Amino acid sequence: MKHHIRIAPPGPKASRIIEITKKHTYDSTFVYPLVIKGGHDCVIEDVDGNEFLDFTSNVGSCPLGYSHPEILQVLKEYSNNGAHKIAGQDFYSEEHAALAERLVSILPRGFKVFLINSGAEAVENSIKIAYRKMGPLPGVSCKNAFHGRTLGALTFTSSKPVQKTNFPELPVLRIKFCITDDDPEINSAENILKENKVAFIISETVQGEGGYSIASKKFIQNLRKLATKYGVPLILDEVQSGLGHTGKWWAFEHYGVEPDIMSMAKALQVGATGFRVELEPTEKGVISSTWGGGARIDMAVGAKTIQVIEKEKLLENAIKMGTVLKNGISELCGKNGIEDVRGIGLMIGIECQSKERRDAVLLSMFRHGILALGAGQKAIRIIPPLIINEEQVNEGISVIHESCSAL
Amino acid sequence: MKHHIRIAPPGPKASRIIEITKKHTYDSTFVYPLVIKGGHDCVIEDVDGNEFLDFTSNVGSCPLGYSHPEILQVLKEYSNNGAHKIAGQDFYSEEHAALAERLVSILPRGFKVFLINSGAEAVENSIKIAYRKMGPLPGVSCKNAFHGRTLGALTFTSSKPVQKTNFPELPVLRIKFCITDDDPEINSAENILKENKVAFIISETVQGEGGYSIASKKFIQNLRKLATKYGVPLILDEVQSGLGHTGKWWAFEHYGVEPDIMSMAKALQVGATGFRVELEPTEKGVISSTWGGGARIDMAVGAKTIQVIEKEKLLENAIKMGTVLKNGISELCGKNGIEDVRGIGLMIGIECQSKERRDAVLLSMFRHGILALGAGQKAIRIIPPLIINEEQVNEGISVIHESCSAL
Ligand SMILES: Cc1ncc(COP(=O)(O)O)c(C=O)c1O
Ligand SMILES: Cc1ncc(COP(=O)(O)O)c(C=O)c1O
Repeated sequence: MKHHIRIAPPGPKASRIIEITKKHTYDSTFVYPLVIKGGHDCVIEDVDGNEFLDFTSNVGSCPLGYSHPEILQVLKEYSNNGAHKIAGQDFYSEEHAALAERLVSILPRGFKVFLINSGAEAVENSIKIAYRKMGPLPGVSCKNAFHGRTLGALTFTSSKPVQKTNFPELPVLRIKFCITDDDPEINSAENILKENKVAFIISETVQGEGGYSIASKKFIQNLRKLATKYGVPLILDEVQSGLGHTGKWWAFEHYGVEPDIMSMAKALQVGATGFRVELEPTEKGVISSTWGGGARIDMAVGAKTIQVIEKEKLLENAIKMGTVLKNGISELCGKNGIEDVRGIGLMIGIECQSKERRDAVLLSMFRHGILALGAGQKAIRIIPPLIINEEQVNEGISVIHESCSAL
Repeated sequence: MKHHIRIAPPGPKASRIIEITKKHTYDSTFVYPLVIKGGHDCVIEDVDGNEFLDFTSNVGSCPLGYSHPEILQVLKEYSNNGAHKIAGQDFYSEEHAALAERLVSILPRGFKVFLINSGAEAVENSIKIAYRKMGPLPGVSCKNAFHGRTLGALTFTSSKPVQKTNFPELPVLRIKFCITDDDPEINSAENILKENKVAFIISETVQGEGGYSIASKKFIQNLRKLATKYGVPLILDEVQSGLGHTGKWWAFEHYGVEPDIMSMAKALQVGATGFRVELEPTEKGVISSTWGGGARIDMAVGAKTIQVIEKEKLLENAIKMGTVLKNGISELCGKNGIEDVRGIGLMIGIECQSKERRDAVLLSMFRHGILALGAGQKAIRIIPPLIINEEQVNEGISVIHESCSAL
């Protein structure tokens, strides 16, 4: 075992930092008293010398784990760049061109991209591209969806009331996110499209924050057919599922469909909106952002991440390790308060019988030195770095078993 | 002169990079064929070895210019950090605590902060904090305001039609942004507040994108009084004007008022929302973002930027150099198609008689090796790094004179 707990967290350094953070900032969505210092491989180190095996990859943001030599090499190259963060829509840079080119190489044919600062902004720009074409009509989105916290993206989010209370919304029509092909509502989008002019349909294929639920194949294929039939752009949100965690570059590849517009972020290191070139705004200045296309270190790390995933065949690894992991966890299903285990590749959800039980399992895993996060009301979110190996997967399985049965 | 043009831009390397960028991305708000490679002091270097004296500071994002030794030192420290970009609302880091603490030290007393990824997101979180308290009521904003491109922030923006066409809006009431104390509309907010329940009033004190217009003192002081009288939070947007460019930390200090909520970004390297602690959401999870508080390099550079501004007395320098610069440019006023020169500190607007003339002056300055950008319909935006010295200021003045009179 390469990781271990020296001092029950929070240790003295962590306590001090958490105290300052709570004093001066809003205490948002922190789960554990974990202050990250650095890491190596799939191991996160905290400021008191504790080490944790990471099954979160920082919600997908660290697909190559920590201290990957090729990523450290990029950081080193930029450590004497005197203009590392620029106004990327006012001035060009080589990193902007290079990331765009590399990203387009793994997108559906005929796509262009627009680089931006977060997943929420990737969604904002996705819907703006659709509105620009279609006008300020209602958008169609799914129940339990999560598309980000800015008020445009948040309109089409409906995962948790606390994220929405008192905030105004844009016009929206909601449909059920169907996880089985025989769901009676599998066609509900058609009724909406028959009766309403809409600007777009937006969905995840694997709901992230909403609980790691996997859309039924027929549901997504229906959305694609209906979008085409009614001439409405289909936006697929790949912010969490994209860039390899499902074992393909994009989760929608498992469905045999292509979107018209898509949002990306997290593993990519910057936000990005991809769109079919026919949807590109015809005027200059329709969408912009100071740092969009200007965060040169992040763009260089993002481009290198794509390269490393290709070179190290990490999509294959995600499928292989994901299968071992899901099979190992699935043995728990129906026992010890575990109701469901589901997943594609290295995105695995464990549905617990209650929020309390979920939180207790997470805490026990944390005490055993394994990090995971919650999703939805009562699911555990498992999304390890793409580089995870079999030994680490097996250790994860045994700690999850232990944590579930000990309670 | 430390800067010079070797090859009329775009040189061969720049041409290639611009071609790739245009092929794969949306061509947004680029003004010149300038591909930034690096820089030193107030000089930007392009990929073909050309050097430009920078009067843009990348729209305020590079307040210490380029290759400042203390900033390069930070980049070096982080060049072997194996977890440099994390989920900053799920996991703590020392950089998050340190930037929050340092930022709070220069904010009005009793403020907390929330760190985020862009100026637009800083505004989104400002208005979300207000909505959370007040409910989903209309917001009041100013004509010609610019608050960002995400659909919440964009609702309260009204600087250019191209930025808004076809996009849906949240409820909004607009007032005139008054630049003289004797403007007959200086009290128009009162009529609105008498007749409507509103969630907030949002304004810049120096309009950035809208044209470097400076609010009248009475106008801002009125907004403050009315906000208090009607129990409505006053949001001041310091994304462009904040962190020193006006010669004070915050432009509102020139007005003798304090906001209830404020947005920051650009010079700070990350977005941030500051708010009076009484307005803090009382539940966890109301606002969040994957990378908010997690961009560890940017947060460390931001904290260092504040320190360097203090240590090198750059607020004083901004006032001193701003005065020389404004006086020098003001001589042009009323001549050569220049209608107005206005500014506070190192934020100076030159109003031209037409957009065509403005663009011609900008291009001539560029050819002479000086970078500036446009703002509003027909103004030139001058916002040099805070470290600019008298020799550079004088060179700028003489090139501006030359460019205006040559046409
Ligand atoms: C599917 C999806 N879309 C959008 C977002 C928003 O991304 P960000 O937090 O970077 O704004 C998230 C974040 O969790 C997400 O999972
Ligand atoms: C006053 C003001 N607010 C908000 C923004 C939006 O900031 P960003 O481009 O980082 O989203 C800007 C950007 O120019 C600004 O000047």
